Amino acid sequence: MSELLRREPHIISAGLSLLAEAAHEQAARVTRVDWAPPMAGTEDVLVPVLNDPRRTAANALAVERMLAVRAHLVDVMPASVALDLQPGEFLHAGPPVSWDRAAGPLRGALMGAAVFEGLAGSPEAAADLAGRGEFALAPCHSRRAVGPMAGVISPSMWLFVLEDPATGQRSYCSLNEGLGKVLRYGAFSPDVLERLGWMSSVLGPLLAEAVRRHGPVDVTAILVQMVQMGDEAHNRNRTGTLMLLRDLLPSMVESGSAAGDIARAAAFIGCNDHFFLNLSMPACKLALDAARDIPGATMVVAMARNGTDFGIQVSGTGDEWFTAPALTPQGLFLGGYGPGDASPDIGDSAITETAGLGGFAMAAAPAIAALVGGTAADALATTRRMYEITLAEHPAFRVPALEFRGTPAGIDVTLVARTGILPQINTGMAGKMPGTGQVGAGLVTPPAEVFPAALRSLAPSVPPPPR
Amino acid sequence: MSELLRREPHIISAGLSLLAEAAHEQAARVTRVDWAPPMAGTEDVLVPVLNDPRRTAANALAVERMLAVRAHLVDVMPASVALDLQPGEFLHAGPPVSWDRAAGPLRGALMGAAVFEGLAGSPEAAADLAGRGEFALAPCHSRRAVGPMAGVISPSMWLFVLEDPATGQRSYCSLNEGLGKVLRYGAFSPDVLERLGWMSSVLGPLLAEAVRRHGPVDVTAILVQMVQMGDEAHNRNRTGTLMLLRDLLPSMVESGSAAGDIARAAAFIGCNDHFFLNLSMPACKLALDAARDIPGATMVVAMARNGTDFGIQVSGTGDEWFTAPALTPQGLFLGGYGPGDASPDIGDSAITETAGLGGFAMAAAPAIAALVGGTAADALATTRRMYEITLAEHPAFRVPALEFRGTPAGIDVTLVARTGILPQINTGMAGKMPGTGQVGAGLVTPPAEVFPAALRSLAPSVPPPPR
Repeated sequence: MSELLRREPHIISAGLSLLAEAAHEQAARVTRVDWAPPMAGTEDVLVPVLNDPRRTAANALAVERMLAVRAHLVDVMPASVALDLQPGEFLHAGPPVSWDRAAGPLRGALMGAAVFEGLAGSPEAAADLAGRGEFALAPCHSRRAVGPMAGVISPSMWLFVLEDPATGQRSYCSLNEGLGKVLRYGAFSPDVLERLGWMSSVLGPLLAEAVRRHGPVDVTAILVQMVQMGDEAHNRNRTGTLMLLRDLLPSMVESGSAAGDIARAAAFIGCNDHFFLNLSMPACKLALDAARDIPGATMVVAMARNGTDFGIQVSGTGDEWFTAPALTPQGLFLGGYGPGDASPDIGDSAITETAGLGGFAMAAAPAIAALVGGTAADALATTRRMYEITLAEHPAFRVPALEFRGTPAGIDVTLVARTGILPQINTGMAGKMPGTGQVGAGLVTPPAEVFPAALRSLAPSVPPPPR
Repeated sequence: MSELLRREPHIISAGLSLLAEAAHEQAARVTRVDWAPPMAGTEDVLVPVLNDPRRTAANALAVERMLAVRAHLVDVMPASVALDLQPGEFLHAGPPVSWDRAAGPLRGALMGAAVFEGLAGSPEAAADLAGRGEFALAPCHSRRAVGPMAGVISPSMWLFVLEDPATGQRSYCSLNEGLGKVLRYGAFSPDVLERLGWMSSVLGPLLAEAVRRHGPVDVTAILVQMVQMGDEAHNRNRTGTLMLLRDLLPSMVESGSAAGDIARAAAFIGCNDHFFLNLSMPACKLALDAARDIPGATMVVAMARNGTDFGIQVSGTGDEWFTAPALTPQGLFLGGYGPGDASPDIGDSAITETAGLGGFAMAAAPAIAALVGGTAADALATTRRMYEITLAEHPAFRVPALEFRGTPAGIDVTLVARTGILPQINTGMAGKMPGTGQVGAGLVTPPAEVFPAALRSLAPSVPPPPR
């Protein structure tokens, strides 16, 4: 003991910084441990869920199933065929929402889609019909689909069909329209609808023919490569798009379609660095759907936003959504737009973060940090922080700048609640007024409340301790 | 002074580590400065060259000219047309070499090329003709061209033609054949020659038509992107290849050529991650040619190897080659090959390192470190070390993992001689027996002697000091 007192004191400080700062000012050697009390609202539910005897094995199974999925692009077909979507039915991003609570970009996309489907003569007429409850709205996630931003899918839109060859399970996503004034950002001007028409009449059938000639395209294998090549597969899909083009173009050329159509399709895909996002998302969806419905598992299987609410789904709680008002992303704006123009967070694309890509793989894509106003060091720090709230390191998504360490994958609701660290999402920003389109790109997190809400649903199902 | 003695001593040690180690063992605080005496053989010539009053401005001009070049792919045409190459004339990689001193891969490539040109009925007959001095050999570099590995160019081979729009200067390179058993690695089997035939009869004309329809392809802009996407443009050209495909395919499709030819060309390019190397190299050549012939400039403008000798050329010494026996790369081997199978260093591809890419941009392509047996940390260290011997940081080739710092560019002979740090080159390894093909990939440096040799040529031209 007297020996201990003779040595220079070394203070280890956890939690609030007041003590550490006072000691530091007195020239003491202080090591700070980053610790915070569990999230507010979890006091009574976190301990029972942590003590659930099923939890460790359940989460291990959820991780195992997520990582075992291979996503193959096997077909391209209209939503009317793929999902039996009927006229007047529309899928949208995020948790369920009614027209009267729908955000600007979602309203804009629904208005445009209704005109595109011939259900209304003008966007305004479409809004009237929607307001009178003439349309049936459902989340993409409820139909094994995902959609970026507004995520609106209508029957005439063509979808990528992804399949896990081991299980035959499928997932679906629309074709990417490009950037700027596009339906998914809530724009509905005539050029937007003309482009959608070309995508349904030319691009979709051409891709379908190419995929059928080529055979399944291994989307998972492309994702693995992308993480080596500067893409995080949410806000940056540049390499993925190029690889898809490389894989499908010879088959497109051999399809016998008109050279002008093939050339326009090749240029359309090649000029849109985000084209592959709509394959990255359903690949992540397919992986996470495999991890659903495991009793006792606290792993998040979906994070999705509709512009009004942010919702998560958890493996152990089935299809229940835990929602809270969506936050507005912080980032950089296009042209003359500013923070006042941005809609709250919207889109199913946070499925990428849920699977260990996007913000979780930011260290692999430091150029994204610059896009949203940060540095390469911020990118590394973001990925490192996400290891605190995840169950696994992805064995195939390996980050060169982290000595090929796997990305943090499989968000655990209990880890989020204990650390207070929220998942980091890279995202595009839509204009809040219907018809605007994209206004920027930035960073956002879920509202903290969704995690305690999930715990409150998990806690009652914990089996009683054995007598 | 007495104050100084009261403080804890802090020893700064430069050069040999003996003193530092002794002090360290006595628990002294030691900071080691990495210093070595100048390279052996530079004692009498380094000081005059360093004192050359023209040197600083001359090197600044060399850097400025190198960095100002934009390389555009403007055409694709046979070497007989582009370079007026005549039957029996062959260009090869590296400094000049005669058949009797030529290495195995170069002999193999010349034998194959002579059969391909119809000058001999068999590789053996071609070797006889070459041995009797029937062929005219000249370095690619002597004709504003570059060639990877053996680098053999014969009249019927089609070349990429690159041009700097500001000056109209041009550079040339053959089309890449893929990996494995290929002519540039010294293979000459029937399948190698069949592929060369298809490249001359189908691929070359198709690319020419596509480039003419598309207009110039900005190769420099693609290189800038590549450094953001995991390519260092020497051993890794994956993104560059995909971007070229994206840019040219719509024009290929619209060319009206047979769909089967277009599809085979698209697949051939898409399946060969190295296809873009043959654009990266002439882009670097074009940049460095602009920096030639500046009196007093000590910047290296070419590093090239023919499998026997490694040669450099320096801005201030015109077309003079400074050569020494080529070293053998250290790295990893394909299949059953081992160190005993590898030819000494060969190829003009070290032009990429000379321009700030390849080994100098290794921090941007940590996957290369793994390919040649290292770690991501090694990749960062390699790029950082090259700043010690270069004149500039490339303003457009920016490394994400170094906070977007520009790559080290423009090797200064005086800095190499002062520090003893040799340029780091990433390279492929050819089998030393003619006909073998590729056996591995690895790291190599120039033989140290070429730098003192350059100084000995620079020194006599230093103007006498004013009286």
